[in-house]
Amino acid sequence: MSKGVSAEAAGRIEAIVGAKGIRPAAEAQRYMEDPRDRFTGKAGLVVMPDTTEDLAEVVRLCGAEGIALIPYGGGTGVVAGQLSLDRDDVVILSLERMNRIRDIRADDGVMVVEAGCVLENVHAAAAEHGLQFPLGMASKGSCTIGGNLATNAGGIQVLRHGNARDLCLGIEAVLPSGEILRELSPLRKNNTGFDLRHLLIGSEGTLGIITAATLIVKPIEPEVVTVFAAVPGPAEALALYQGMRRQLGEAVSGIELMSGFGVGLVTGHFANLRNPLAEPSEWYVLTELAGHAGLQDNVEGFFGEEIEAGRIADAVLASSEAQRQALWDLREHTPEANRLTGAICSSDTSVPIASVERFVAETHAALAKLHPGLRVNSYGHIGDGNIHHNVFPPEGVTKPEFVAATPGIIEAVRMAINEVTVACDGAISAEHGIGRLKVNDLARYAQPAKLNTIRAIKAAMDPKNILNPGALIG
Amino acid sequence: MSKGVSAEAAGRIEAIVGAKGIRPAAEAQRYMEDPRDRFTGKAGLVVMPDTTEDLAEVVRLCGAEGIALIPYGGGTGVVAGQLSLDRDDVVILSLERMNRIRDIRADDGVMVVEAGCVLENVHAAAAEHGLQFPLGMASKGSCTIGGNLATNAGGIQVLRHGNARDLCLGIEAVLPSGEILRELSPLRKNNTGFDLRHLLIGSEGTLGIITAATLIVKPIEPEVVTVFAAVPGPAEALALYQGMRRQLGEAVSGIELMSGFGVGLVTGHFANLRNPLAEPSEWYVLTELAGHAGLQDNVEGFFGEEIEAGRIADAVLASSEAQRQALWDLREHTPEANRLTGAICSSDTSVPIASVERFVAETHAALAKLHPGLRVNSYGHIGDGNIHHNVFPPEGVTKPEFVAATPGIIEAVRMAINEVTVACDGAISAEHGIGRLKVNDLARYAQPAKLNTIRAIKAAMDPKNILNPGALIG
Repeated sequence: MSKGVSAEAAGRIEAIVGAKGIRPAAEAQRYMEDPRDRFTGKAGLVVMPDTTEDLAEVVRLCGAEGIALIPYGGGTGVVAGQLSLDRDDVVILSLERMNRIRDIRADDGVMVVEAGCVLENVHAAAAEHGLQFPLGMASKGSCTIGGNLATNAGGIQVLRHGNARDLCLGIEAVLPSGEILRELSPLRKNNTGFDLRHLLIGSEGTLGIITAATLIVKPIEPEVVTVFAAVPGPAEALALYQGMRRQLGEAVSGIELMSGFGVGLVTGHFANLRNPLAEPSEWYVLTELAGHAGLQDNVEGFFGEEIEAGRIADAVLASSEAQRQALWDLREHTPEANRLTGAICSSDTSVPIASVERFVAETHAALAKLHPGLRVNSYGHIGDGNIHHNVFPPEGVTKPEFVAATPGIIEAVRMAINEVTVACDGAISAEHGIGRLKVNDLARYAQPAKLNTIRAIKAAMDPKNILNPGALIG
Repeated sequence: MSKGVSAEAAGRIEAIVGAKGIRPAAEAQRYMEDPRDRFTGKAGLVVMPDTTEDLAEVVRLCGAEGIALIPYGGGTGVVAGQLSLDRDDVVILSLERMNRIRDIRADDGVMVVEAGCVLENVHAAAAEHGLQFPLGMASKGSCTIGGNLATNAGGIQVLRHGNARDLCLGIEAVLPSGEILRELSPLRKNNTGFDLRHLLIGSEGTLGIITAATLIVKPIEPEVVTVFAAVPGPAEALALYQGMRRQLGEAVSGIELMSGFGVGLVTGHFANLRNPLAEPSEWYVLTELAGHAGLQDNVEGFFGEEIEAGRIADAVLASSEAQRQALWDLREHTPEANRLTGAICSSDTSVPIASVERFVAETHAALAKLHPGLRVNSYGHIGDGNIHHNVFPPEGVTKPEFVAATPGIIEAVRMAINEVTVACDGAISAEHGIGRLKVNDLARYAQPAKLNTIRAIKAAMDPKNILNPGALIG
């Protein structure tokens, strides 16, 4: 049943945010799209406040009227956390107009930005001051800081710089009560009561709407070295990482496992991209290091010895920024290549680092048992124990054909990966969050003590359940 | 009115934990002592469970009977978080028997330890595997991991390695309901619902009792360089730190500001300790760096240039482990020297790094205005913006004499420091927590939105208020 948001309520919201701050659902198709084309969202109204105070007033009004709010960042989330799947009597609350860089304080090593800032714009603003904000991911051109924090985003530099929460010293947020929490001071130590910042970060907009954040920025390092190398398998990729850590120290910013199959998908779909190594390999790593002058020589020496010792087959070091970007393009075009190829499942698992090899072997075996023709592209942030599996129909079969001919296969694949995850003491969501896609999985796999506590906190902070109802908790 | 814990309840608790797990209040003087001799705690009974399951059963029994529990780690907390100040109908819950190292997993870069492990023993266990657990503080010989996490302890290596929460991948805890939360898997990424680990860490035992933790351990680095240098003042100490960061990178593990007055107190009270620099200085820094072979040469070069450029007066590098320990003894004996000298106030403030100079200047001015004879030892973790002021009576006047002759001076000193803290956008507790000492300060300075949320969460998770009542929230 379509109810939408009443014209009367919409009028009162417009009185707060102005005509520029409101968009009827009929003109807001893009807020209802899923980046992986699996869902279509619904909405009664899209609201785009310009200030924290206006947003707080909207939340108070919606609380009084019992209108649910779905916070929306860049729309790049892949677990439907930003989509209302079955209700159109909701407000989509987009932070896109709150996109100011409020302050860059080099002496304090921070910048204060509004939640609607696109990640790439934050990178650029920091770079103007010789600084970096070391959170990176393929969606950097669209995703926003608010979404990054609401989902505790991960990405390709977690190994060295941590997840989004580790790069945030303070937040400003509107709570379900409509109160504003202002904790933006750039304090490195603050033991004054429960850490509400860490509670709100990763709560996927169910406990509050983050409106601004104080982000840690770090000096740009003089040398950046990017290497693409052929490795025998995941275990050897991890051994390579451990060796780099021992010999090159904390300079390793990231190490991405890539499958030969996956690299082939990328070069197949994007004609301008190519695999820079001559001999094909079943597995590759893409790794980047940053540090002081002389690092490049040390890295060259290290990889030379690895090749000589036969531990890796071949490697290429980027010798220019263009080459570096070309290597990263191979990695960053992977999600889109997976989509174009017709993935029936895209998993996001973390396991203890020492269990990565077991996890990859056992999931591959379980999938082969489900259906021998399934193709799997396994890749991801191996140094964090965070592997993504993208699972495809057999060669030559389209996704619609395969799904129609193999009822229940999507769910069976998902559950097969989940079961190995749990057996490996892993997490069913490493970096994407729960959203609406994994609500049942969380309810199934989380301990009762955790679920009970999550529900108790949600009920205490949002008794009317107006913030992102249906996400995370269900 | 003395009520104590009834013999009947004590008997039922003993039936759970056994005779070794219980100690009557009359034999438990040490659990009632304050490390700064300001308070005396009360208790009806001390309970020392041996397992998480027994502890959970005790919590369930106490919940049913309405008996409050005060979690107790090493007893080194300085804000009376572990002391019951006005009720003796409570159980002091000591984790001292739960002191096993459960696992050391070098491949995963973690160790799993029980909450009652003394920090120094954790260091030693890690070192046996060539690893370090980089959380360090003066109380390391007594404080426990459980207390470290419950208070999100800081200390001397936060600059590089973070606070206690940043070194913990997982916890096991008993919740107020008596449920056990087991989240010990060493995952670097885990976005499966609200981060209860970060909520419990720093909640000072009011939301749960941490019983075990998965701690991050890192390889011991080949070279450690320790330097004691005379600097003109706090601003120059910070500039020195920034220069070190630029030239020596992330090798800087810590930098401690020390006042000449404070160093004099330490060498005055401890005859075996001496100031290694010939010329007296109003300010010093003690800094330590760790890294790869060659670091010592680089550090020597750096300090040589600083002296040559006149930015620092003099410096000494430790040339042996004994010399290194002698330098650290100057810092680590500071709290005890302050106590012996008769401090009337010991503050624990953090401010934005760029505001440290202002904070020190304005607090000194405010204190001089309160009473011109007050002596102040300012020292601490300057790279974190975390400065401690210890305030003493005028030269030649004892603490009891001064306090008697100057009514209200202790509170006036505390409030003068608090007011400057707040003006500098700082935190009234950087690393010690709120405990019972700062409950009124938190209620005064925290925003209503924060206080309301803290109270709502506490009521939701501990509706009978049995875990550490009176601490943090009041």
